[in-house]
Amino acid sequence: MPGGAVPFGRIPVMGVRPLVDCGARPAKSVVGEEFVVRAKVFREGHDAVNATTVLTAPDGTEHYFGMHCDNVGLSEWSATVSAGSEGWWTYRVEGWSDPYATWVHDAEIKIGAGIDEELMCAEGVKVLDRFASSVRGLDIDASAIEHAADALRDTSRPAADRLALATSADVRGLHSLVPLREFVSPTPRYSLLVERERALYGAWYEMFPRSEGAWRDPETGAWTSGTLRTAARRLPGIADMLFDVVYLTPIHPIGTTARKGRNNTLVAQPGDPGSPYAIGSPDGGHDAIHPDLGTFEDFDYFVATARHNGLEVALDIALQASPDHPWVKTHPELFTTRADGSIAYAENPPKKYQDIYPLNFDNDPAGAYAEVRRVIQVWLDHGVRIFRVDNPHTKPVAFWQWLIADVAKDYPEVIWLSEAFTKPAMMHALAMAGFQQSYTYYAWRNAKWELEEYGRELAGDAAAYMRPSFWPTTHDILTPYMQFGGPTAWKLRAALAATMVPTYGIYAGYELMEDVARPGAEEQADNEKYEYKDRQWYLYEPGRARSGQSLAGYLRRINEIRREHPALHWLRNLVFHHADDENILVFSKTRVVDGARDTILVVANVDPHSTRETFVRLDLEAMGMATWSAFTAHELITDQSWEWRADNFVRLGPDAEPIHIIHVRSH
Amino acid sequence: MPGGAVPFGRIPVMGVRPLVDCGARPAKSVVGEEFVVRAKVFREGHDAVNATTVLTAPDGTEHYFGMHCDNVGLSEWSATVSAGSEGWWTYRVEGWSDPYATWVHDAEIKIGAGIDEELMCAEGVKVLDRFASSVRGLDIDASAIEHAADALRDTSRPAADRLALATSADVRGLHSLVPLREFVSPTPRYSLLVERERALYGAWYEMFPRSEGAWRDPETGAWTSGTLRTAARRLPGIADMLFDVVYLTPIHPIGTTARKGRNNTLVAQPGDPGSPYAIGSPDGGHDAIHPDLGTFEDFDYFVATARHNGLEVALDIALQASPDHPWVKTHPELFTTRADGSIAYAENPPKKYQDIYPLNFDNDPAGAYAEVRRVIQVWLDHGVRIFRVDNPHTKPVAFWQWLIADVAKDYPEVIWLSEAFTKPAMMHALAMAGFQQSYTYYAWRNAKWELEEYGRELAGDAAAYMRPSFWPTTHDILTPYMQFGGPTAWKLRAALAATMVPTYGIYAGYELMEDVARPGAEEQADNEKYEYKDRQWYLYEPGRARSGQSLAGYLRRINEIRREHPALHWLRNLVFHHADDENILVFSKTRVVDGARDTILVVANVDPHSTRETFVRLDLEAMGMATWSAFTAHELITDQSWEWRADNFVRLGPDAEPIHIIHVRSH
Repeated sequence: MPGGAVPFGRIPVMGVRPLVDCGARPAKSVVGEEFVVRAKVFREGHDAVNATTVLTAPDGTEHYFGMHCDNVGLSEWSATVSAGSEGWWTYRVEGWSDPYATWVHDAEIKIGAGIDEELMCAEGVKVLDRFASSVRGLDIDASAIEHAADALRDTSRPAADRLALATSADVRGLHSLVPLREFVSPTPRYSLLVERERALYGAWYEMFPRSEGAWRDPETGAWTSGTLRTAARRLPGIADMLFDVVYLTPIHPIGTTARKGRNNTLVAQPGDPGSPYAIGSPDGGHDAIHPDLGTFEDFDYFVATARHNGLEVALDIALQASPDHPWVKTHPELFTTRADGSIAYAENPPKKYQDIYPLNFDNDPAGAYAEVRRVIQVWLDHGVRIFRVDNPHTKPVAFWQWLIADVAKDYPEVIWLSEAFTKPAMMHALAMAGFQQSYTYYAWRNAKWELEEYGRELAGDAAAYMRPSFWPTTHDILTPYMQFGGPTAWKLRAALAATMVPTYGIYAGYELMEDVARPGAEEQADNEKYEYKDRQWYLYEPGRARSGQSLAGYLRRINEIRREHPALHWLRNLVFHHADDENILVFSKTRVVDGARDTILVVANVDPHSTRETFVRLDLEAMGMATWSAFTAHELITDQSWEWRADNFVRLGPDAEPIHIIHVRSH
Repeated sequence: MPGGAVPFGRIPVMGVRPLVDCGARPAKSVVGEEFVVRAKVFREGHDAVNATTVLTAPDGTEHYFGMHCDNVGLSEWSATVSAGSEGWWTYRVEGWSDPYATWVHDAEIKIGAGIDEELMCAEGVKVLDRFASSVRGLDIDASAIEHAADALRDTSRPAADRLALATSADVRGLHSLVPLREFVSPTPRYSLLVERERALYGAWYEMFPRSEGAWRDPETGAWTSGTLRTAARRLPGIADMLFDVVYLTPIHPIGTTARKGRNNTLVAQPGDPGSPYAIGSPDGGHDAIHPDLGTFEDFDYFVATARHNGLEVALDIALQASPDHPWVKTHPELFTTRADGSIAYAENPPKKYQDIYPLNFDNDPAGAYAEVRRVIQVWLDHGVRIFRVDNPHTKPVAFWQWLIADVAKDYPEVIWLSEAFTKPAMMHALAMAGFQQSYTYYAWRNAKWELEEYGRELAGDAAAYMRPSFWPTTHDILTPYMQFGGPTAWKLRAALAATMVPTYGIYAGYELMEDVARPGAEEQADNEKYEYKDRQWYLYEPGRARSGQSLAGYLRRINEIRREHPALHWLRNLVFHHADDENILVFSKTRVVDGARDTILVVANVDPHSTRETFVRLDLEAMGMATWSAFTAHELITDQSWEWRADNFVRLGPDAEPIHIIHVRSH
């Protein structure tokens, strides 16, 4: 075709969804995750059209999913599909002419009206004979088709009876299963990357390992750092809250040049441990472990202990260097040299961050890529399969695309979490480039309308390539909502994060509702980034001084609910419902596992300052029930049960619970 | 990349628009038509990013259009572009790193704050030296760059002065013109088909040639058909109304088998001429002329007379046959054979249309394509360059794509109008397949909100591939709005069609407001499709019986306004404005020609039954004016003038004019 135009197929198929960047990037799912493939399929004239979605497994096996016409006027077809194993699949849509459906349509009208009866039966014989031929050789009992063709030939019987046999449930059933397809017109094959479940679903717990077991001498005020061994003692507690992933902030040697002091002050005092994000000292760089934390043997012990406790370890990758990093001498091309010959430190003019040298990937891209790849291999060799990447949006997208693909060649199970708190285009591009998970704007989405809008975006088209991770706080983020929302806010934001999306995380100390901000900043006072923090977990144990002042039990219950309810392991099944109150957020997730429907319904008061009473109106059909259904609403946090229908009264807020997590038990 | 993923460029560029079916089909424009190319362009870190749209002409010449960032947060960039000649162009977007802008940003802040002054000047020298090198060899005076670099080197001068020279208007101007571009990252090249202006802009007039000059013997009641020669006598009248295209319903021999009688009755009476859409008789098929109309010599005379009157001739292509068509014997494979050996006629069960055999393109696609192509060549050889295609949605889209491309090889000036009154997906697909113009749903869009919604759709993304033709009525369509709206409706709907979109058309008799429908149908009573119609045009001339009862003068004035105002020759410049009344529709079109701004503002009362008074609120910025501007509103139909600002009172309706077509005269 002139201008490189692609010829239309005999049966046009357009607007396939999902389609990531017009097919330039793969769509993604995890094993068994259902998603909907949509397309516009149509044809000339009045004959019947039909469509199939075909998934092709990495071994070439083809899986056929019959599509359904959702909107005749707009020619919209869809199929719910899923891929059963990891790897690079493809998907395509095939439009086709449906001669059996065409004949059934015409024959039912004409024989019903007594018009052209013998002719229609004769046309039917032709179609059914072709149908019978098309299934021959398949391992299917197609005798119903042959019987129907024979019946149509039998002029001694009334045409209506013959038609009835040719349109019996048996014949229609066979046609649904192995249809007679004519003019099959496939779209191109689009890539589908199927990853392991943890890429979509998991509960994360962030910790600074040096704080766990850190000890302050009450006499001298001097601190002794925690180690990987002492930090490992915290793992049973994290496992007991039923988290899946423990994420460690960087564990590498920390620079001393221009080291930041407590509360991000410019001059460190003696004993200040420095930010673990100012990586590199004479003790080593990204491939080394801070001597205070221990050795690679200790790291291996930590990873093994985590595994023993059912936890995966995620390591923080912060690609930047302190001025003391070995790279400054061994790989000067990794940095930017200024006109005066000095190495450029980080700046946001007029601010200077002289403790940090950003990496430069343009002086010698191949060399820079290879050096980072070498560092990653060190941690792969020590059992790390999840990486949390700090500020990936300050490095070229093309670099990440290369790195993630290169690692996946040998380690397809590796998961990368993108900490791109930046513009939407970059956040989405990094997901398209390969990051399995993305931090999101969740921390700043507090109003009901914002959460609904954002939830629809994330669970909609974006879910084909971006998997959100919701964090109510991090070591860098403490929003005014959390500073001033009290315990209600802390319960609510964790529970919301844990139920709206399948992956969420909290930062150590969330249990203790640490809500004091450094004045004028939206981050913790006495930020753990610049100092040790001994949280004295033992004080919150039963019978101890602060017993009952921790959210650990609440978090454990939320994670328990997550584990027990497969509906919460998926993202794309998120559905919002109406509530009269502008602060009452309502959503549900439904998933059918082995024929059993699991539905979780969440009702939350997002105003942490006042208790609200309102009515919620449920879209029961979206939850797999008839609109007039009644059901038992079993609230899983308080273990209460109510009889609910489409309209229900709720009361939520600081003087009770801020959120209901309800298991729907149909009668 | 695994899974065929496309590597990201060094500077990511995503979401290019226009992009038709993900680039599988060309975008379209006409010569000189401006359109906006958009993309998301962004990069890692804080350095400045920039973007260029590049249009490549058929001869390989590249045209660069600097892009502008419309939304920093959403990383949205755009450029208004146009292509100056017909043919197959390409367009691409190039994202790039902008070292000059990066330096200017940092230097202005740091030198302004007295920080790192010499270092920033030295960095500037490096950037300007590269900039100077990059323009060397271009036919451009780049001495300003070199002077600026020299000034930066001059440590005897204050840094602020040196910075001022390096960021002078001259240097910035050169950087806008021939920027120093680093890491240039192009998207793929997308096709752009540039066609002649008539593909976008034109006023059409439909006629049944047999009616023009048809004569009924008052004694016998017998009719004598009009001929191409008598029809040619009507051309000056059409030209006098300033139409551009005269479109003839099919002129081929008409079948007699099962010929339809007047008012679509099943049995024709003697003398009934039959529908010209039941094509083919022993006198010939689609390559022949009905003997009553004349000969090819007469046809050539008609085409020449039209051309002499400034009119192009559009021929109706209705690919279907009467049972008497020569194809039935010469090309039986063009039809569908039923189980009883008979040829299938058209049906919509249980309805039968036994006067029509639909064509079948699947028995022998290559043969069918070639035969249609042969027929088209006959009319190309007789000077036809515009084809109006009847019911293209009843033939395969792939066939049209092939036919239009094949004809365009030798006749790139040919224009095809698609009469696809069918589902949106098919209507849009036919436009993507190559039809230059499309009938639309305009006839059924009568409410203000409908017209706004539809106008935004057509002038938005769809304008990249579909060019609407608005017809208030056709020989098949007479909506209740036109049946019952009176003269107000007939004026309004023609004027709206003529101003909202660049191509519109009317069916002969529109001048006479023929609003009587066949009872129960939404089409004309005594439909001209089945009989002759002598409209006695002479009676409407000055001094004759029906003088003053025709809209011919009104239509002439509308077409005159169209010709005089280039803003109305374009589609994508359509902008809607607010009016308080839900029946007052307001839109404007602005275009700059040779530096002069032409703005047409239309205010219409779409309720033909009541006069309405209201306020309109204009978005003056969208009209190229400051929000506080005053201007002279010169109403072009009534030749009145008012002083207007953003808010203006209007009164429109059946007791006055239903529509204002205003030329905006800025002070």
